[in-house]
Amino acid sequence: MRVTTLHGTRDIRLEDHPDLTIDAPTDAIVRVVASCICGSDLWPYRGENDITPGDPIGHEIVGVVEEVGAEVKEFKAGDFVIAPFCHCDNSCPVCLKGMQAACQNLGFTTGGQAEYARVNFADGSLVKTSGTPDAAQIPALLALADVMATGWHAAVSARVQKGDTVVVVGDGAVGLCGVLAARQLGAEQIIAMSRHEPRQAVARTFGATGIIAERGKEGAQAVLELTNGIGADAVLECVGTNDAMRTALRAARPGAMVGFVGVPHGVELPVNAMFGRNVGIAGGMAPVRKYLPDLLEATLAGDIDPSPVFDLTLPLDQVAEGYRAMDERRAIKVLLEP
Amino acid sequence: MRVTTLHGTRDIRLEDHPDLTIDAPTDAIVRVVASCICGSDLWPYRGENDITPGDPIGHEIVGVVEEVGAEVKEFKAGDFVIAPFCHCDNSCPVCLKGMQAACQNLGFTTGGQAEYARVNFADGSLVKTSGTPDAAQIPALLALADVMATGWHAAVSARVQKGDTVVVVGDGAVGLCGVLAARQLGAEQIIAMSRHEPRQAVARTFGATGIIAERGKEGAQAVLELTNGIGADAVLECVGTNDAMRTALRAARPGAMVGFVGVPHGVELPVNAMFGRNVGIAGGMAPVRKYLPDLLEATLAGDIDPSPVFDLTLPLDQVAEGYRAMDERRAIKVLLEP
Repeated sequence: MRVTTLHGTRDIRLEDHPDLTIDAPTDAIVRVVASCICGSDLWPYRGENDITPGDPIGHEIVGVVEEVGAEVKEFKAGDFVIAPFCHCDNSCPVCLKGMQAACQNLGFTTGGQAEYARVNFADGSLVKTSGTPDAAQIPALLALADVMATGWHAAVSARVQKGDTVVVVGDGAVGLCGVLAARQLGAEQIIAMSRHEPRQAVARTFGATGIIAERGKEGAQAVLELTNGIGADAVLECVGTNDAMRTALRAARPGAMVGFVGVPHGVELPVNAMFGRNVGIAGGMAPVRKYLPDLLEATLAGDIDPSPVFDLTLPLDQVAEGYRAMDERRAIKVLLEP
Repeated sequence: MRVTTLHGTRDIRLEDHPDLTIDAPTDAIVRVVASCICGSDLWPYRGENDITPGDPIGHEIVGVVEEVGAEVKEFKAGDFVIAPFCHCDNSCPVCLKGMQAACQNLGFTTGGQAEYARVNFADGSLVKTSGTPDAAQIPALLALADVMATGWHAAVSARVQKGDTVVVVGDGAVGLCGVLAARQLGAEQIIAMSRHEPRQAVARTFGATGIIAERGKEGAQAVLELTNGIGADAVLECVGTNDAMRTALRAARPGAMVGFVGVPHGVELPVNAMFGRNVGIAGGMAPVRKYLPDLLEATLAGDIDPSPVFDLTLPLDQVAEGYRAMDERRAIKVLLEP
């Protein structure tokens, strides 16, 4: 089987590996129908995270179950499934509290930019569709494996309420999905911070009512001008840098929450300023499995369509070009077809 | 009029000052019926905050309106009132969002350990009782001016829900009121972290179902043993030190919130650990005016009685002894009668 591997900074290769096998009786092997490249894949690609050269990469897949372990009860070969990027048993005490991203049997899709992928705790992790979806539905369903669920988690963590004014920091696929989540949760005014015209266009499609191109203090000042001088009711921080977090905290009105889903890279939280303005933060890795059934229903009903985050589709053997396109911001998000 | 002043570390004096006057047409002068000493007064008393020698001190009062400014419409001389420690117009855009602790006209009771005190924006700040309360009701009503509302804010910020397991870090008056707030909000299991027997007793009176005397990692470990190995659904941080915050974050289960109301002194937030466990924080100075009507109603109905936080009552001329008793932890909270 062919699988994408990372060998060093900006060194992406498609290699032939032995076929995957069922390692644990709770595993499933999924034949990948579509996968994609995540903004978070760019951290190791750019050399900003440590890597083990030659490791497979990619964590977002939809596909068809090929084989299941002896203890898998809910899925069989032929089922079309969405695989959350983080796997969970969905039955441990932490999962039962609704925080599947910290499951006591947490696992991850690794090597999803490939022909096949393994999912741990398949019964807990996977969600299936009632039949095989149309090809046109694949991109939206694929977005549910990570970016849409992560944008949703940002909005839920920021406690977006009906009628709220919401600011979204970050115009990657997650930030854009955060705009869509805020709209779906009833936000009245949604301000997307973006300086890239194609992303601004997607943000507007997803429900953004305003766009701010400035960053940092100027960006926060622009937010004040749009929010009665006080800031937003909820802010989604979808980047993970210290600058983005500072902007998010500044854009929040007193009493607001910042929902943060960008993996923190060098973030320092100004606790005294947060205390002084009663601005809180919450977030982390999204408990995808928690949200997936509702997001799937909303997607199939046409209430949400996150597919516009994919603006480039490539065959798997052009995966290296896909990384280059995202690295150079020529593409928002690249869908890969094995 | 007599007023308590702080002249240096552990140098509390009761002095004669000129009578207060109405400075702004929105002011009220209140004759103090009861005031008290706050845990936060101990920071400057102990020399841990900068002070201006001779400044009046004290911010918690109940009393009778003596005089009002020309623009005060809702109050008149003779009204019995509770004065939130932080004053607000209760009408600016921030107040209308429910965050009166960041009012655009924020003020504070200063010099409340005195015979008279001034309240800014009286119409926005004050809440009155329908008649003059009995002497026996005074301590509970006085607690609403700060500590009960602050404990309530911790519980609200930590999103305490019916059936939750709640941990309270800090056994000062605010922490104890946090226990009472958690009970009132429907928490099922309430674990108070305290090593002081008299405070443990008040915590149990307020609804604590368990007491943990250990601190730090040992304390967090003890929490795990009481919470199915995962930690608490909500944690109230009512101290303000870095150790207390670390304990609070460790005691929280994945997906939980820490509500923090202790003014941070040297706190550093471990953002990556918070992200990794999806543990959020929210809090700050309590928007007392927001909570006061409901807390007053609950107090008058007998649903809550925060008065046990006061375990020493002194005449105002023994205020210095009151500070010593609290500094040496001989008293939880001292009530002063002018």
